[in-house]
Amino acid sequence: MRIYDIIKTKRDGGFLSTGEIEYFIAEYTAGRIPDYQASALLMAIYFSGMNPRETTDLTMAMVNSGERADLSAIEGIIVDKHSTGGVGDKTTLVIAPIVAACGVKVAKMSGRGLGHTGGTVDKLESIPGLQTSIDRDRFIEIVNRTGLCVIGQSGHFAPADKKLYALRDATATVDSIPLIASSIMSKKIASGSHRLLLDVKVGSGSFMKTYKEAETLAKTMVSIGEGLSFRTVALITNMDVPLGCAIGNSLEVVEAVNTLKGIGPEDLTEICVILSANMLYIADKGTLDECKAMAKQAIYSGTALECLKKMVTAQGGDASFIEDTGKFSTARYFRTVTARKDGYITKMNTENCGIASAMLGAGRAEKEDNIDFAAGIMLENKIGAKVQRGEPLATLYAEHEELFDAAAEEFLNAIEIGDKPQEETKIVLGRVEN
Amino acid sequence: MRIYDIIKTKRDGGFLSTGEIEYFIAEYTAGRIPDYQASALLMAIYFSGMNPRETTDLTMAMVNSGERADLSAIEGIIVDKHSTGGVGDKTTLVIAPIVAACGVKVAKMSGRGLGHTGGTVDKLESIPGLQTSIDRDRFIEIVNRTGLCVIGQSGHFAPADKKLYALRDATATVDSIPLIASSIMSKKIASGSHRLLLDVKVGSGSFMKTYKEAETLAKTMVSIGEGLSFRTVALITNMDVPLGCAIGNSLEVVEAVNTLKGIGPEDLTEICVILSANMLYIADKGTLDECKAMAKQAIYSGTALECLKKMVTAQGGDASFIEDTGKFSTARYFRTVTARKDGYITKMNTENCGIASAMLGAGRAEKEDNIDFAAGIMLENKIGAKVQRGEPLATLYAEHEELFDAAAEEFLNAIEIGDKPQEETKIVLGRVEN
Repeated sequence: MRIYDIIKTKRDGGFLSTGEIEYFIAEYTAGRIPDYQASALLMAIYFSGMNPRETTDLTMAMVNSGERADLSAIEGIIVDKHSTGGVGDKTTLVIAPIVAACGVKVAKMSGRGLGHTGGTVDKLESIPGLQTSIDRDRFIEIVNRTGLCVIGQSGHFAPADKKLYALRDATATVDSIPLIASSIMSKKIASGSHRLLLDVKVGSGSFMKTYKEAETLAKTMVSIGEGLSFRTVALITNMDVPLGCAIGNSLEVVEAVNTLKGIGPEDLTEICVILSANMLYIADKGTLDECKAMAKQAIYSGTALECLKKMVTAQGGDASFIEDTGKFSTARYFRTVTARKDGYITKMNTENCGIASAMLGAGRAEKEDNIDFAAGIMLENKIGAKVQRGEPLATLYAEHEELFDAAAEEFLNAIEIGDKPQEETKIVLGRVEN
Repeated sequence: MRIYDIIKTKRDGGFLSTGEIEYFIAEYTAGRIPDYQASALLMAIYFSGMNPRETTDLTMAMVNSGERADLSAIEGIIVDKHSTGGVGDKTTLVIAPIVAACGVKVAKMSGRGLGHTGGTVDKLESIPGLQTSIDRDRFIEIVNRTGLCVIGQSGHFAPADKKLYALRDATATVDSIPLIASSIMSKKIASGSHRLLLDVKVGSGSFMKTYKEAETLAKTMVSIGEGLSFRTVALITNMDVPLGCAIGNSLEVVEAVNTLKGIGPEDLTEICVILSANMLYIADKGTLDECKAMAKQAIYSGTALECLKKMVTAQGGDASFIEDTGKFSTARYFRTVTARKDGYITKMNTENCGIASAMLGAGRAEKEDNIDFAAGIMLENKIGAKVQRGEPLATLYAEHEELFDAAAEEFLNAIEIGDKPQEETKIVLGRVEN
């Protein structure tokens, strides 16, 4: 077997055999295939695509390139959720406790924020004392005791994906559905859950800009999951507007806690109920409607909030911050950004809202950057709102006053104010189940 | 300017600016763009193509990556010829003397053989004493004195092409018309001639397998030449059958000399007259018909043969081998290969004929391999011939008897014998002039 022939086959629109895909991943991970041949193959895949069998083979080859978490010591069904990344997406902090409160285990590995998107691990670490680097035995013990635990991703899973992703990032080969789908699924499968809910975001704040693209990605991932007997359902959800009102780490924790207290923003509450219901449904807890009722009950009865407090305590965090979110320290400075004219908010470039928040200190441009937990944006008005010139659109928070000018400019440029009200858009746009 | 954006633009089917192409070539040649980004761009070019302006820009950027031969000390017009490579293609040895005999200078840099194709430099070096590594001043002096000189290619020309070609060879990105065309044209323009005849081969013995591909390549190269005020004409010629009867280095020299003596094979004589006529036409020596008559006259008057002898002497070779080709030493062993059945030769896989010759010692599998000047194949019958079972098809020559079995097998598998005679095919299939 020669990598040259593999590149040529894919270049010419052919299909790679299972053996060829396994060979490529094993040899590339071992450093015996150079980057320049791998990047040529990736570009050929970008153009020629991969069929479902090839995409599934690529996923499994990447799973097999590293460790696979053994969570068999956890009792019961473990359901995972993965979001393709958005702005203000604090749903994990809400739904993991809801699902756990309903008796389904959540043993979740999450990522950090990069670019315009935030990361659950960063948000959790804004709770004083909370640890996200936890060894396997303690992780399993916490899940068994409290029903949930959320930790950072281990580098031992799917090392082939890690190496390939860095190469794709440098060679303009990220935006390929089979490569995105196999990258996500390989990490999820390696991390040891049994069943998976995918939240595929579509819109100005996500990587998928059109519904069609998002649907193709969702279908591809569900097909991979089903091909590997890994039960998978995908929702396609709206990211043309930030989720909720908070963007930024501790700001989002406070909003998530409010949602568990039943006083969160309407859109965030709605999507969290639907996501939770789907996770419970995947875990065979009932029909979707039954699961929806269970999720709502977990909020209104306070059992979900109790679960979050138990998890925070188990992970070393100070749960009194959950009881009284007023304890979170606030940013040293704030600035209110106001509407430049009368009208209706017709559009929010959500990616740029995320970038504005990152510019205030809440996010990272590079992986090594530090973040400021208290920095971020609280939206006062979103798409559809009628505003008058001078009326507040949002409040920006930062530790350094000099960060405001550029961030305010970035944020204001992301907001379009028009003459006519915008029709309300749905939060959940589609659902894919095999 | 960032290479990432250049890759992305080409991936998305956009056009690269002149500045972007210059940046890529300069930075890649200097080692500041890594191979893995260059190979991703090459694959994107493979799929998205390049328009004529981009292809011309790429050619000039590669020319400018190295030295450009200054042949201004040569008086008169210098015409070059380039063949895309074939089997039994000894035309340079015939047409350079014809063109010089007609008063047009030929200052030519040629290559060595690799794979199934032979190289003019190897063929010339089979003449005892003949040098092909000659410095610039002596090269110019020989051209001015004898009208022609053929030397090996210098590594100082278009180093970007050399580096990119090695990368393309490893990443299945050789077969791209704009990349092939700019590679050939950059070397030709850097080597200092004023005008150029391209001999684009098509058929089983060449890199272009269909007429359409060959025509596209020819048109692309003519367009590059004209865009750079470098007068260029292309002929598209048949390589579905080896040229002449000799394959192998000294065997081909003898056949070329015979052709200059008026006793060469018909097909070789015909193509050499047409190629020579086109070179004279490009040099403004008259109409194509007038130039054809001049070329024939140079053969039948013996003036072309005289030119070859002068060149051989000037390059340090023993011209008595040209007078009496019986002086060439012959291979130690020969074996006759015969027809396996009665019928007509309907097909010769010409690439495999070239490989058989290389297996006998006449060619190289790798650049560093040594070659045996006397080894090779003399064809007794070609496409269209009626043969009887046991009748000779060819004689194989080698220095070691154990080379015959595999080479004879390779050769015989290349020959198809059918029931009906094959229609004769033309030698020159097309012509491209702006």
